[in-house]
Amino acid sequence: MKVAYLGTGAWGFCLASLIAAKGHTVISWTTKKELADRLELTREHESLPGHRSEGDMRFTVDLEEALEGADIIVESVTSGGVRPVFEKVRTLGMPNCPVIITSKGIEQKTGLILPEVVVEVLGDKARDLIGVMSGPSFAHDVIRKLPTSVVGTGYSPNAIKAVLDLFTTQNFRVYPNSDIVGVCYGGALKNIVAIACGISEGLALGMSSSAALMTRGLHEIRKLSQAYGAKQETLYGLSGMGDLCLTSSSLLSRNFRFGHMLAQGLSGKEAKEKIGMVVEGAYSCVSALELSKKAEVAMPITEMVSKIIYEDLDPKAAAMELMQRTIKEEHL
Amino acid sequence: MKVAYLGTGAWGFCLASLIAAKGHTVISWTTKKELADRLELTREHESLPGHRSEGDMRFTVDLEEALEGADIIVESVTSGGVRPVFEKVRTLGMPNCPVIITSKGIEQKTGLILPEVVVEVLGDKARDLIGVMSGPSFAHDVIRKLPTSVVGTGYSPNAIKAVLDLFTTQNFRVYPNSDIVGVCYGGALKNIVAIACGISEGLALGMSSSAALMTRGLHEIRKLSQAYGAKQETLYGLSGMGDLCLTSSSLLSRNFRFGHMLAQGLSGKEAKEKIGMVVEGAYSCVSALELSKKAEVAMPITEMVSKIIYEDLDPKAAAMELMQRTIKEEHL
Repeated sequence: MKVAYLGTGAWGFCLASLIAAKGHTVISWTTKKELADRLELTREHESLPGHRSEGDMRFTVDLEEALEGADIIVESVTSGGVRPVFEKVRTLGMPNCPVIITSKGIEQKTGLILPEVVVEVLGDKARDLIGVMSGPSFAHDVIRKLPTSVVGTGYSPNAIKAVLDLFTTQNFRVYPNSDIVGVCYGGALKNIVAIACGISEGLALGMSSSAALMTRGLHEIRKLSQAYGAKQETLYGLSGMGDLCLTSSSLLSRNFRFGHMLAQGLSGKEAKEKIGMVVEGAYSCVSALELSKKAEVAMPITEMVSKIIYEDLDPKAAAMELMQRTIKEEHL
Repeated sequence: MKVAYLGTGAWGFCLASLIAAKGHTVISWTTKKELADRLELTREHESLPGHRSEGDMRFTVDLEEALEGADIIVESVTSGGVRPVFEKVRTLGMPNCPVIITSKGIEQKTGLILPEVVVEVLGDKARDLIGVMSGPSFAHDVIRKLPTSVVGTGYSPNAIKAVLDLFTTQNFRVYPNSDIVGVCYGGALKNIVAIACGISEGLALGMSSSAALMTRGLHEIRKLSQAYGAKQETLYGLSGMGDLCLTSSSLLSRNFRFGHMLAQGLSGKEAKEKIGMVVEGAYSCVSALELSKKAEVAMPITEMVSKIIYEDLDPKAAAMELMQRTIKEEHL
């Protein structure tokens, strides 16, 4: 198969390598000429040093070249990049092959999950082509071929099958799940909890406190997700609990690191600048709060995270406020 | 109130200190004369150095003295110790006050949760007196008054209220939950997953792999628990997911450390000796497998852990075997 791969960040490079190692031809597209040239030359990503990709893999800044004759399109751009990238794709002709999303996020302003953004851009006829791969997976682990389990979902059985067929290897297990809403909400919203856990660890509040934040955080994102049509069990699966456990406990996670910096006294703006890459959770919490107001779902942890980032609420005061909330029955 | 506290391990000492600091009189009982004398003198537990307990707290080896005039009885012994300790209590007269269990485990051979063991010993009339406190909480964190959230449950609303009233402080939040079976299964079975995660980390399989083990591990212990009457949401709450997240990611956890040693080539017997304390998960996995056979619930992770501990299965081979299982829909 010929695979058009949109995005050459660490995750995109890692997955493109995995696909190429399976014997497919991969053309990876980026807007950055210098990066494309360097990757073409070194076949090694600067965020994943020491892992030269094997297989048939090329890099280009020419989107038309990448898409030409593609049997499948995969994207790994930022959540904010999904709409403009697919607008470019559309100008080159409507794709008639599976389109797989691996980014995690909720679009700002529209509050849409990313496959819905693609449907808006490509039209409803494209719906059945769209699949999503998500779940607990650090590029750092996957590039080393360490055992990893994720989920594949999509709007049609064919799209789900395309995700499974494309990514599954002996060490990379892809579980099918037909709940695309739940998978996308889980992948996007866990980043908010990761920021909260980073704050907790930055304040040295202890691991018991982080474990409670993860549990209560999943509780509130699960309630929000269900209000928008997700299945409960999906949020308690790999692309909810699993991804949350991974992202909320390691400085390898950008969102966790961002929270850590907030706890150390940096403002939201300063911490974002220091990270230097998109901190998805900082955007997702804004979308989540808007969605929660519409659905009348209480999200105390998300609210605190948002106030710390955007209203300069002191993280310690926020932690105290959380601990002083009235206690209700655990599952209300 | 006068509190009779049975058990002076790190957890028992820590909770007894919390209760004494609230203004109650605590008499802590242990069978070890030397330990009682030392604690009476230093008011500091050797596992929690630097934390001298304040408040009205005494230590004794005389069970009668501890129980005399008690308004509430709390236990923190090993899961195997619950039956013999309450048999001793019974010989001194039937308690007519709340009895709170803080140990986690499933009794070997009988497969009973610990409050059921106490009911067997004290008789069905005692049922409504029995409460349970469980959830993600390291003694290490609680003794430092770091924010901690747990659940309180019991066979009667009065028993649940007794748990909440006794333990709640500004930093120690106790959420009520009426599902005693779910709370006990969650607290006992998470130790098995902690061993699996210790093995994974010991084999350097990466954090993505541990996150998948935690998710799939919770999936199988949730299914088993439901087969025995637990509510699904309890396993996804503090005494399931929360405790699992805490126990499965830290060398502070005995069960995790035990798994780590197995991965380094120690046999189950050798690792148990090296830990030198009871590794609850090594017992729980035997009970869990027996229960799973009766209920016809597949528990592949528990099975692997058991084979590694008791049949000297090579941990690497076990990991490979897990990765080669047929993939089904995520929630089947």
